[in-house]
Order: sequence, then structure tokens, then C-alpha cells
Amino acid sequence: MTEREDAQPVAVLGLGALGSVVAGALLKAGHPTTVWNRSPGRAADLVGHGAIPAATLAEAATASPVVVLAVADADAVRAVLEPVADALAGRVVVNLTSGRPEQARDLAAWTARRGGTYLDGAAMSGTRAVGRPEALFLYSGSRETFDSAGPALRSLGRARYLGADPGTASLHDTALLGVNLGLLTGFYHAVALLGGAGVPAPDVAEVVTDYLPFAQGLLAEHARQAELRTAPPDEGTLEVLAAAVDHLVATSAGLGIGTDVPDGIRALLERGLRAGHGRDGLPSLVGVIAGTEVTR
Amino acid sequence: MTEREDAQPVAVLGLGALGSVVAGALLKAGHPTTVWNRSPGRAADLVGHGAIPAATLAEAATASPVVVLAVADADAVRAVLEPVADALAGRVVVNLTSGRPEQARDLAAWTARRGGTYLDGAAMSGTRAVGRPEALFLYSGSRETFDSAGPALRSLGRARYLGADPGTASLHDTALLGVNLGLLTGFYHAVALLGGAGVPAPDVAEVVTDYLPFAQGLLAEHARQAELRTAPPDEGTLEVLAAAVDHLVATSAGLGIGTDVPDGIRALLERGLRAGHGRDGLPSLVGVIAGTEVTR
Repeated sequence: MTEREDAQPVAVLGLGALGSVVAGALLKAGHPTTVWNRSPGRAADLVGHGAIPAATLAEAATASPVVVLAVADADAVRAVLEPVADALAGRVVVNLTSGRPEQARDLAAWTARRGGTYLDGAAMSGTRAVGRPEALFLYSGSRETFDSAGPALRSLGRARYLGADPGTASLHDTALLGVNLGLLTGFYHAVALLGGAGVPAPDVAEVVTDYLPFAQGLLAEHARQAELRTAPPDEGTLEVLAAAVDHLVATSAGLGIGTDVPDGIRALLERGLRAGHGRDGLPSLVGVIAGTEVTR
Repeated sequence: MTEREDAQPVAVLGLGALGSVVAGALLKAGHPTTVWNRSPGRAADLVGHGAIPAATLAEAATASPVVVLAVADADAVRAVLEPVADALAGRVVVNLTSGRPEQARDLAAWTARRGGTYLDGAAMSGTRAVGRPEALFLYSGSRETFDSAGPALRSLGRARYLGADPGTASLHDTALLGVNLGLLTGFYHAVALLGGAGVPAPDVAEVVTDYLPFAQGLLAEHARQAELRTAPPDEGTLEVLAAAVDHLVATSAGLGIGTDVPDGIRALLERGLRAGHGRDGLPSLVGVIAGTEVTR
């Protein structure tokens, strides 16, 4: 534990895969960290690194002004918080447990009734990166809470505040899962396709990594086009892209590999063609998904 | 046109969207550039920037040791090259026209019979980036040709040589289309989903851009796992991810938006579950797509 001026006492409730790395990152950053887990034995390692073990849940909940939760699900959050409801007045609850937007809103209202404030958090970069600058956490709920818990939260990685609705971090989490799996399944398909032609998987990863900055560079502009509900065909029309995906499907089938990934993309393009966007650009698909109108 | 020591005379045949920016980038980099287009009138702007206009196809084909083709398709390539077949001996043909692997192999063999060498190229970053370091071109075919045309090719952007099989650049192009559309359709779905909750599209682009380095960082490791045919469930098992995608589908449907994108991903996960990979990690999907075995 190193000394720091903005050291912020924090209690971490729940020492599973996420909670234990969160506690470890807080300790490493020099924050006095109290730890508690429902089933004992999980704290030993952290205590060896300077964590303060709480003997009871009540002790943990009252140990610090900032209470961080990382447990199995929203039911487990309620099971942990309800017995210590009376101790939450004036405290800041940061809930890193995965859940749904309505659960986050319910927990925020419940905490407010006990005199505490609530911030919902989503760990967007797995567990291994926690505590490093490449880790990303999304937060929503009380802005004051986000600011007051700032030194602790920034010790976990990049901390991004999304707004006052406690449910928005969770909704972003769900939406980003789609982005992540879109990219990864597209990548797995490329690995399978090129693997069928003898290209080793690590070589595919290298080429894809080299290529991605271009695809990434399109996001901001396509977002602007989606916002303006216009979709110039600069990068190819839906017609041309549908033909190219047909070729991807045919090539994949010809090599005997599955076509679920391009089939899903092709189904969306087909909906775009049927909606009359054959000569529009890719961002017209946003309107197709959303069911709103997009003009050329 | 600036003077440079390694200036390399190049002829660009075809001045459509790609050919004209390729010729422009070569001129800007100081290479003496001859230009030709089947229908006249396209060259005027480039000539104003120092390009040498070829009056006939024969004049263009014999103007320089390096002949770059950027026309509509493989048929157009043959239509351009056949009349000047006798002039190709000792020349280097770089074909940037999109095509299929077997077409690239045929063209390579055809060019070799005329005493020329053939390099197939794929422009992986649209047209706007051409000439800038962020542009990426993939090449396959004769290594000697790739090296000898190096100064010109490097003026177009990053030049990556993939191997002696002339078809591999085209196959990579097809595979990378799947990666690009996997990422973009995942992004469009996120824009539609979060848009339904009032989040402006540019804000979604910002969060996704902030998030992508994590997803990208997984590629190399997942490639290693695919190569070893092992898939530890570090980032979540297929079971857990299938449940999360079910939630993404349900949330999307609840907001009245289309589900093609998550449906396609879910179909692949289902195939993974049925193949017995419920407790394996995501990279087991490579084997599911490829139809090969993956062990835990």
C-alpha cells in the first residue's frame, strides 16, 4: 500500500472474480480497503496485501463512506444490502454487479429511501485489466456520487459517467456486448475461413488488428449520418455489399465452414434492401434496425 | 510532383473511384505516373497535377515497367490486358481490382505466359485514405514483384505481403469484409438500441471507440487458443454469453427494434452449445464454425 493524498476508504462486498481484483486494485492504489465475502476464506490473499477483513457484514457496511458491491446478481445485491439498510444513510453505494436497467433503477430508489446515494457501474473490460489504464468502467446514477467516489473509481481504470438514469450503464453494457460479439464472431469466421485455406490463426489476428483502425474510423462518421438520417453510399451501396456478403457466404460454404455469422449480416442487409435502401450506404441500416426512416 | 530518389514510373489503367486516388497518391509521392481510362475525360484533373496522359491503351501499357490496374471486375481486367498481351513481357502487373481467388490465380498464370509477373492487391480502407499511412493494401503473388514495385506500393499506404498464392489477398478481402460488417452491424445495433433510450448516436460512437481496444486486445489470444484448439472460459462461458445475448435480444425486442444482428450471433452460440461447448470460452466458436474439434 502506497501513501496518497486523496486516499479514500472503501469497503468491497463480494470477493468473486471481479470483487477480488477490484479490492486488489484499490489496495495497490493506496486506498484503505475493507473486504467482506459471504463465504469466508476469500479474503486471505487480499489481507496479505493490506486489506482490512470485516468480521461481519454490518462491520463491512459501516467501515467506510464508499461501499462497492460485486456479487452474483441483483438478488444477491438486495440480500447483502437489506440486513444493513439502516447503516446506508450518508453512504455511497457503487454497484458493479451485472444487472438490468430496471434493477439498477429499483436499487437506486431503494438506496435513496435509506438516505444513501447509488451509482451503477459496469466493468467493460473483463477482470484482468482492472487497475490498469486500459480497463474501462461505465457509471450512471448520482453525479455527486460519481465525483465523490472519484479517486477510488479512477483507481480501477478509465471511469466514464453516462448520466443520471441509473439504468443507462447497464443498457450500455448490453449494447456493447453486441458490438464485442459482432467483432469477435466476425473475427472467428475469418479465422475459420482463412484457416480453411491454410492461414494460421495468429496471422489472421495480425492482419485483422492492422485493418481494424479503418473500420473503427468509420464509427464517428456513421453515427453522424445515423443522427442526420442520411446515408451516402461512399463505402459501397447496400446492393453491392449484399452481393459481397453473398460471396462471403458462398466462399464459406465452398470451404465447408458454417455461415451463421454472414447469414445474420445478410438477413439485416436483406431487410435494408426490402426497405428500399439498395442504393444507400451502410448507415441506413441503423434506421432499418430502429424502424425509423432514413433518406438518401 | 516532388523529386525523390526512388521515384518509380507507373502506369495506372482505370480511373474510377479507386484508380483516380491511386494515381493521385503516386503523383503526390513523386512517381512519374501515366494514366489511361477506357472512357476519356477522367484524366484531366490528374493531368493538371502532373500525370502523363496516354492517348491509347497500348501507349499506357508500354509507358512504364509497373502497370497498375483498377477497373470494374476481373472481366474488365482481361478486356484491358488482352489487347496489349504482347507488351507485358518483363513488366510487373499490380491488379487492385476486386475479384475472387481463382480469378487472381488465372490472371497470374495468364500474365506469366506473356512473360510478365503478377501481384494481386486488395485496397482494404476504402478510397479516401489512399496515400495516407492509415490506408492498408494487402498483396499476394510474386514476392519479387512486390519488392520491385515497393516504392510505388508504399506510396499508397501500408503494404502487406501475404504470400505467393495470388488468391490469398482476395480471400483475405472477403474474410475482412465479415469482420468489418460484424463490427459495424454490432455498432449499428448499439446505436439503434441506445437511441431507443435517448442516447445520441455520436455519444454511442464515443463509448464504443473507448471500448474497442479491449475487444481488439482479445484477438491475438483468441487466435492462439483457436490454434491450440483450446478455449478456457476466462471471459465467460458460452452458456453465460448465450444468456446475455438472450437478454440483448429481449431488450431490443422490448424497445421495438430489429434483432437480426443478435439473432445471428445467438444462432452461432446455439450451435456451440449443441456441440457441447456450454462451459468453454468464446474461441471454441472457431472450431464450431470450421467444423473442427476443440477441447476444453
